Amino acid sequence: MNHSVIVEVTLRTGIADPEGATIERALPALGFTGVRAVRAGKLFRFDVEADSADQALATARALAERLLSNPVIEDAHARLDEVAST
Amino acid sequence: MNHSVIVEVTLRTGIADPEGATIERALPALGFTGVRAVRAGKLFRFDVEADSADQALATARALAERLLSNPVIEDAHARLDEVAST
Repeated sequence: MNHSVIVEVTLRTGIADPEGATIERALPALGFTGVRAVRAGKLFRFDVEADSADQALATARALAERLLSNPVIEDAHARLDEVAST
Repeated sequence: MNHSVIVEVTLRTGIADPEGATIERALPALGFTGVRAVRAGKLFRFDVEADSADQALATARALAERLLSNPVIEDAHARLDEVAST
């Protein structure tokens, strides 16, 4: 069975985020006020062929930690994409 | 009130995704089989100061379309981060 999985990779709390800071600085000039604490991260979506959803999630977690994120500075979180799983 | 918002920016269907394709090619060498259709995207998390959740979402949507994504090739989707909103 094919399971659609989403992996979110975000910088750990306390790690400097220059991309987020740059976006935040640009906001007032574009008319957006009251937006704070902008953090940029990465998002990966893929299909895992597995017998169960749990097994698909386990594969996605291993993949997220070994290939998609740098565990020193980033957190990875895998979840099933409920809508797209078939 | 402060609302925590998440914006997901993903490439539109049909748009070539070299980052996702590169990840997919690297997987078999790392022992991951049965993973397909890898798509890479971006994730932004920020706090919006607004009277209501709807208003915060509207701000986040406008921001996502004007600043965080390229509407020609990307889809942007904003949602509330239920856990972090205070």
